[in-house]
Amino acid sequence: MEPDKLSMAAGRLEALGDGIFSVVMTVLVIELKIPRVTGSSFQEFWSALYEIRQELFCFFISFIVLGIMWFGHRMVFEYIARTNRYFIFLGVLFYMIVCLVPFSTKFLAVNTLQWYAILVYGLNLSLCNMALFAQWTYGLKRSSLHGRDIPVSIRKEARFLFLVSPVLYGLSILLSFFFPWGSIAIYLATPILYLIPNKLDRYLP
Amino acid sequence: MEPDKLSMAAGRLEALGDGIFSVVMTVLVIELKIPRVTGSSFQEFWSALYEIRQELFCFFISFIVLGIMWFGHRMVFEYIARTNRYFIFLGVLFYMIVCLVPFSTKFLAVNTLQWYAILVYGLNLSLCNMALFAQWTYGLKRSSLHGRDIPVSIRKEARFLFLVSPVLYGLSILLSFFFPWGSIAIYLATPILYLIPNKLDRYLP
Amino acid sequence: MEPDKLSMAAGRLEALGDGIFSVVMTVLVIELKIPRVTGSSFQEFWSALYEIRQELFCFFISFIVLGIMWFGHRMVFEYIARTNRYFIFLGVLFYMIVCLVPFSTKFLAVNTLQWYAILVYGLNLSLCNMALFAQWTYGLKRSSLHGRDIPVSIRKEARFLFLVSPVLYGLSILLSFFFPWGSIAIYLATPILYLIPNKLDRYLP
Amino acid sequence: MEPDKLSMAAGRLEALGDGIFSVVMTVLVIELKIPRVTGSSFQEFWSALYEIRQELFCFFISFIVLGIMWFGHRMVFEYIARTNRYFIFLGVLFYMIVCLVPFSTKFLAVNTLQWYAILVYGLNLSLCNMALFAQWTYGLKRSSLHGRDIPVSIRKEARFLFLVSPVLYGLSILLSFFFPWGSIAIYLATPILYLIPNKLDRYLP
Repeated sequence: MEPDKLSMAAGRLEALGDGIFSVVMTVLVIELKIPRVTGSSFQEFWSALYEIRQELFCFFISFIVLGIMWFGHRMVFEYIARTNRYFIFLGVLFYMIVCLVPFSTKFLAVNTLQWYAILVYGLNLSLCNMALFAQWTYGLKRSSLHGRDIPVSIRKEARFLFLVSPVLYGLSILLSFFFPWGSIAIYLATPILYLIPNKLDRYLP
Repeated sequence: MEPDKLSMAAGRLEALGDGIFSVVMTVLVIELKIPRVTGSSFQEFWSALYEIRQELFCFFISFIVLGIMWFGHRMVFEYIARTNRYFIFLGVLFYMIVCLVPFSTKFLAVNTLQWYAILVYGLNLSLCNMALFAQWTYGLKRSSLHGRDIPVSIRKEARFLFLVSPVLYGLSILLSFFFPWGSIAIYLATPILYLIPNKLDRYLP
Repeated sequence: MEPDKLSMAAGRLEALGDGIFSVVMTVLVIELKIPRVTGSSFQEFWSALYEIRQELFCFFISFIVLGIMWFGHRMVFEYIARTNRYFIFLGVLFYMIVCLVPFSTKFLAVNTLQWYAILVYGLNLSLCNMALFAQWTYGLKRSSLHGRDIPVSIRKEARFLFLVSPVLYGLSILLSFFFPWGSIAIYLATPILYLIPNKLDRYLP
Repeated sequence: MEPDKLSMAAGRLEALGDGIFSVVMTVLVIELKIPRVTGSSFQEFWSALYEIRQELFCFFISFIVLGIMWFGHRMVFEYIARTNRYFIFLGVLFYMIVCLVPFSTKFLAVNTLQWYAILVYGLNLSLCNMALFAQWTYGLKRSSLHGRDIPVSIRKEARFLFLVSPVLYGLSILLSFFFPWGSIAIYLATPILYLIPNKLDRYLP
């Protein structure tokens, strides 16, 4: 009485994710205020730009972070070829937290050096990483979801890359109470970590 | 005079649906107000968050419900491989009702314990399920649309899963007139039903 | 010196189109105002709904029309398998006009029985059909773009289906000057035409 | 100790890009103001339209430019079949700049003949082209990313097509200081350049 197993190819979940990431990334821009320039001198243009500096800054950071998260999300599906109900629900959880990024970005843009804005932003980004890590971990355990073997070195490096951000963001949240510029510096520096070549690179073309 | 049949692969309709779901899910967040914090004490931060508690709550519920609906929608296409005009129009009807979810979510967020908001929200979610059920039923009848055989046990369990929500949401609407908190509890509890393992799980990887 | 021809599969253009349709359809809903209910009686709820009746009505019509247009767009690609620069630019033109539908829908919702709103709306929908027809006609002529043979009966019926709407919408625009309700009735009735079985159906599964 | 190389098919990045382009294109329209017509004479309708002429004009230009950019982006992936970390990050950079187009379009619509609006708009479009060119150049160098051989004539013509726009937009920025109408004319004329048949056409179907 072995039933016909469904294929449950991961492609549909990837498509939903790619859609969500592309909308979330664009939503970041809709939220950008158009600067009001009061005259036509360079001074006046510059001061109009200066007024939206925090929004522009937060836009750039969030876009890059979302790009890195999309990359991580994409890498997960290089190994996972099939899905089941729990894997999909972990995916929906991840997308839900990703969808909150424009919200917490805007909150940070409005209250840049406030501890609570740094807290909300750092928490949001950390939860993104942790939800994706949960999905990845679940996928690793269920061998029926694998599309290919997952070498031990990949598992270790992926775990490190998933968890280093929440640690740094936690540090940033702690710093926010006495040195908020330090928190911002961490938000700026963290993405760069993911640009440095790492052990996963030798598996890439 | 047998004409060359078109393939009418379901992939395009799935792509439209994935696109619509991803935009609808993200739109839920655009609608979220940025809380205004009046000072930098924990008290003031908390009361700003407290002010958007209904919006956050409705956002979470709707996102999870949409995730479950996407899952159901995805499952339909595990069996349906081809489309025709009527199947596509039933699909467009389903997407139209899905697109209204951010609207009724916002309406519920603004008027959380009012009978009419509970009515609109419950009706919207029920119609989603019923439209998807209509599409599924049509697909079952037209064997030329099937991608694979559909076992009887699947048909029964799917019908139950499609129709249990409208029944519960109907109950919630009735409750709203004398005990609105009960309605909200039903909206909160219904998604959990879909997380419990069911008979369809043995077909999944 | 025959160069290696590129494949230029139509899939990418279809993906762009599916994305645009799904965003446009959802944008229709973002534009919907949340009704403000002033009390909790049925009367007050109904009058709040009544206030957005024009918006809801225009939302439904536009969504259905966009659904039909998506269907037409999808059908074109059942025959067209490859693209070139001109085919893609005609596609971008079509998408540009489709993107204006939420704009003219909102304009119609605000000025429902005014000739200019009926004109803008009818013109927008007519131009959609005509741009898609231009794309289809170009595709027909270039045999290197075909994915399969296109029977004469398909060509004739498709031309009829592409051009019947602009004629009806033109009629609706003329009517708007002395009997605007007639124009609205045409906008309501036209989509139903596309639900009636036609000669193309025997090619569908 | 040769590790199993991942396939890293470019399809996911293309899907993200198609999603972003479709949202960005539609966002252009959400930004369009609904004209307020004060009466029902032709005069009043026309003057309402006239008031949004700059927005409509900028919408058309930006939509066509984005269409052309999408075409270029699509062509890149006709040759690139696989991705790696750096290629994806260059892609995210490109998408980030593309996402800013609705922002700079709106800025231009509000301040049409001002040098700073022309500067921001021209800079944004130039950076789009340059980021895509950087991605293309990186892809050319890494033969492991190629899906097919890239003839020298393609490389030359592509470089020309990528770089001619930034040159023209630079000219437009210079012109803006003494003859802003000339800048607008350049923005209007540049897209037409990409409609003229060029050397790449013989590779197309």
